[in-house]
Amino acid sequence: MEKVILLIQCPDQHGIVAQVTQFIFQQNGNITESNQHSTDLEGGRFYMRLGFILDTADRTILEGAFSPLGKSLQAEWHFHFESDVTRMAIAVSQYDHCLVDLLYRVSSGELNATIPFVISNHETTRALVEHHGIPFHHLPVNKDTKADQEKQILDLISENSDFLVMARYMQILSADFLGDYGKEVINIHHSFLPSFIGANPYRQAYERGVKIIGATAHYATMDLDEGPIIEQAVARVSHTDTVQTLKRKGRTLEQNALASAIHAHAEHRVIRHGNKTIVFEP
Amino acid sequence: MEKVILLIQCPDQHGIVAQVTQFIFQQNGNITESNQHSTDLEGGRFYMRLGFILDTADRTILEGAFSPLGKSLQAEWHFHFESDVTRMAIAVSQYDHCLVDLLYRVSSGELNATIPFVISNHETTRALVEHHGIPFHHLPVNKDTKADQEKQILDLISENSDFLVMARYMQILSADFLGDYGKEVINIHHSFLPSFIGANPYRQAYERGVKIIGATAHYATMDLDEGPIIEQAVARVSHTDTVQTLKRKGRTLEQNALASAIHAHAEHRVIRHGNKTIVFEP
Amino acid sequence: MEKVILLIQCPDQHGIVAQVTQFIFQQNGNITESNQHSTDLEGGRFYMRLGFILDTADRTILEGAFSPLGKSLQAEWHFHFESDVTRMAIAVSQYDHCLVDLLYRVSSGELNATIPFVISNHETTRALVEHHGIPFHHLPVNKDTKADQEKQILDLISENSDFLVMARYMQILSADFLGDYGKEVINIHHSFLPSFIGANPYRQAYERGVKIIGATAHYATMDLDEGPIIEQAVARVSHTDTVQTLKRKGRTLEQNALASAIHAHAEHRVIRHGNKTIVFEP
Amino acid sequence: MEKVILLIQCPDQHGIVAQVTQFIFQQNGNITESNQHSTDLEGGRFYMRLGFILDTADRTILEGAFSPLGKSLQAEWHFHFESDVTRMAIAVSQYDHCLVDLLYRVSSGELNATIPFVISNHETTRALVEHHGIPFHHLPVNKDTKADQEKQILDLISENSDFLVMARYMQILSADFLGDYGKEVINIHHSFLPSFIGANPYRQAYERGVKIIGATAHYATMDLDEGPIIEQAVARVSHTDTVQTLKRKGRTLEQNALASAIHAHAEHRVIRHGNKTIVFEP
Repeated sequence: MEKVILLIQCPDQHGIVAQVTQFIFQQNGNITESNQHSTDLEGGRFYMRLGFILDTADRTILEGAFSPLGKSLQAEWHFHFESDVTRMAIAVSQYDHCLVDLLYRVSSGELNATIPFVISNHETTRALVEHHGIPFHHLPVNKDTKADQEKQILDLISENSDFLVMARYMQILSADFLGDYGKEVINIHHSFLPSFIGANPYRQAYERGVKIIGATAHYATMDLDEGPIIEQAVARVSHTDTVQTLKRKGRTLEQNALASAIHAHAEHRVIRHGNKTIVFEP
Repeated sequence: MEKVILLIQCPDQHGIVAQVTQFIFQQNGNITESNQHSTDLEGGRFYMRLGFILDTADRTILEGAFSPLGKSLQAEWHFHFESDVTRMAIAVSQYDHCLVDLLYRVSSGELNATIPFVISNHETTRALVEHHGIPFHHLPVNKDTKADQEKQILDLISENSDFLVMARYMQILSADFLGDYGKEVINIHHSFLPSFIGANPYRQAYERGVKIIGATAHYATMDLDEGPIIEQAVARVSHTDTVQTLKRKGRTLEQNALASAIHAHAEHRVIRHGNKTIVFEP
Repeated sequence: MEKVILLIQCPDQHGIVAQVTQFIFQQNGNITESNQHSTDLEGGRFYMRLGFILDTADRTILEGAFSPLGKSLQAEWHFHFESDVTRMAIAVSQYDHCLVDLLYRVSSGELNATIPFVISNHETTRALVEHHGIPFHHLPVNKDTKADQEKQILDLISENSDFLVMARYMQILSADFLGDYGKEVINIHHSFLPSFIGANPYRQAYERGVKIIGATAHYATMDLDEGPIIEQAVARVSHTDTVQTLKRKGRTLEQNALASAIHAHAEHRVIRHGNKTIVFEP
Repeated sequence: MEKVILLIQCPDQHGIVAQVTQFIFQQNGNITESNQHSTDLEGGRFYMRLGFILDTADRTILEGAFSPLGKSLQAEWHFHFESDVTRMAIAVSQYDHCLVDLLYRVSSGELNATIPFVISNHETTRALVEHHGIPFHHLPVNKDTKADQEKQILDLISENSDFLVMARYMQILSADFLGDYGKEVINIHHSFLPSFIGANPYRQAYERGVKIIGATAHYATMDLDEGPIIEQAVARVSHTDTVQTLKRKGRTLEQNALASAIHAHAEHRVIRHGNKTIVFEP
């Protein structure tokens, strides 16, 4: 038995659901999850996620069988097999709270993913990572070596990861890097976007005197802090908070928002459309 | 054009989704919402909600056409037409905050429902109700007259309402009443169930020293405070709170939990199964 | 018996608390609440709120007795008497949800304030206001009449209100107006400031694809949407939300944030310092 | 310079605040934090927490100087010196998520405490604990050895800890143990107390169909799950959750509620009164 997830998007039109579910029925599949979203019933775009159980699943056969229907719907589509465990590469700088959290969630089996390696521009987290039996790659970077360093990262991750998490990696990945990698990169920004874009968001929040702070997990794009938002988390603060205590409270938010976004992404519940995301609830 | 919601439940089996969506396709319907839930893939019960648009919708024809498939799936099913505006009867005693909130949500058009009348065992809210142009029925009750009073309520609501809301109606409706009415009754309980069942929940919460209080909207059943939970809302409290301030904070929770439950119920997003509910998100 | 609140601020220095509490003791007062905050122990500013019970309270005597200590501390200070019920003027345009909520909170006795009148640039809410027995003043406004209209508002409120609430009053009050009024003006902004400053914040939130929306109650200043934040409220949203449903969910947030801010302000728990607020919890 | 916290409680009476703050002023202390609470102004009990800075602090001198005032107020009181770092003993069984979280918060310096050792009735967490350079004591237990094992724990902790945390320690500590230890024991219960007392709370929550789950940090008392509540945390769940996913979501709640309670306790912001707690906000 194999659990399969079909993600599909196409121009909205009559009969999509009927045809796709009919196809799965013909494959002898049992549909266990279905979610759909349409941006507009007239001339909009249709997005669907179907989870189904197959007694025996062969990717080539399944894809071949679906291909004509996919073509006739003018669809982008992908079958994800649950037995293909997702490989999550992690980049981190010196703040380790998100890394600690992700290592725990993977090692405890809560997150259905593996961590092939951790990349850092600092040595700070090496002991922690290696204690978990995970390879650690120290790739320092400065203005002059940035292109080279990104090339080194690409060499490591392009074949050996399914997506990359910037777990408080305090460098901006170039447009070239993102284009060459061609897979999703998830970043955690330490503010409630679009508030406090840029440096030192907790100080900005302190200066503005907000009563609620937040953290935002989003897909990295060329425009820093402008990528599609996957998840946000918030917490109340007060006049007694200092920049220091905002940072402390923010750490929990960053951990939670990032973990929640990764959960959704790893379960193929997130679809990008334009600069937004559709996040199907389980 | 008519928006139709199909709620269906049946023993889980292969091909349900394919067959039902195929049926809608044949009726020339365009599926805009789909949610499903199965209690167990093997021998479990399957629940589905499908929203679709029909160019012309005739209930008799639609039901007649679906009947054979419904039978073959051993399903319970119902088509809800959006143009059939839901009639929400309200029972209230003296606390008026939930009533005020519901009147506002209906009059502002936020809640797609009508209020055919308000029933109360007190005169307290008459002016408020009549100011909204809604008939008000004063049906006082005591131990000796309870059976009669429930009979009077039944006479009012059985034909002229689709469901009944106990918006802080401080009487227990008898099992006979619930059975005779045969439609859903939604109650708001002023605690975070199953905590603080029974009388004076805010006092109980105060005595126990909890740091979070709540309110619970649930379907009324013969077992008071034991019915299927639809929605819960919570708020932080502290040692500075008195029973009085807990009640004040609780009022907002009661309003919000009840309104949210009614929203879901009126949009046919709630399905009971046993003593629980499935609440499909929009 | 009279409950008195002392708000005081002065340069931080040794012995403030001891001297002030000693003073209250000498007046035969029983301190029931105390909160303090210092921006910096060295050279910072000190803020304190003390609640105390006096058997007999005479404002002139109390102020006269405190004056020397206030002077020696270089303090700004004010005694608020609980028996002086706060008069809250309300300005509103067409959206009535915050108004409905405030009318209920005052009429139910939850909010210890009176509403001397409601001012609006539209007739929309007249019936609602007058149903509560509160005078309604229709003061229409356009670009050419703005100065005159603000003059009319001032004539109404300057003597007969203690603060002004902009309960979705969709006009910008001029710097002159704010200066001439000289008392606090509380505004509710329909976004999670500083996100989505300016027009149509719910549309902005929709376009950006945020996963949490908010509302912000703040003191009005010359810089629109830049005033000191008193309270914020947030709620989760998803890709299924439209601008319309964001507005609907936002209404509850606006009601709650505004009511909470007014509660704090009316209980003299808010102190401005620069562009921030200190909000002492009860 | 030393930061000192005074916790004091006594029968409510006029002039307490004035006398105590006068005392601190005479010691040349600068008060930086003050919180107070009275259960009843007439015949109630008064609780206060004062934080102040002393240039030089000598415990014996300070206590000696305060003693007469303490006596005249019939007060219980204690001076906590910030330089006396709190020693937090931890007991754990097999679930390690709270332990992981506490180890991180201590090692990152967020929590101003040391962990002298970790005690467990299982070997499961030894490697984790020793990786942090903290002694690990394996003290297995069964019905017959319980008294002996508790004696062993007491030998370890009575001199070398300031409080004990049951970080998912799945044994009940006897009344004798609690009495002999004589210091506070903080437990994390994996439900929103008083809901779901006893075994398998997540299964109970699943069976009841609640829409919000919780976790509760409380002081351990002889009556299991009945001790004074310090902190509670909650999260939304739905019909799609299984017992397994409730447990997963609950882990984050348990971590957060426990950490928050320990923060408050370690900063001397918690005072027990009867079966409740006063938790002063920072």
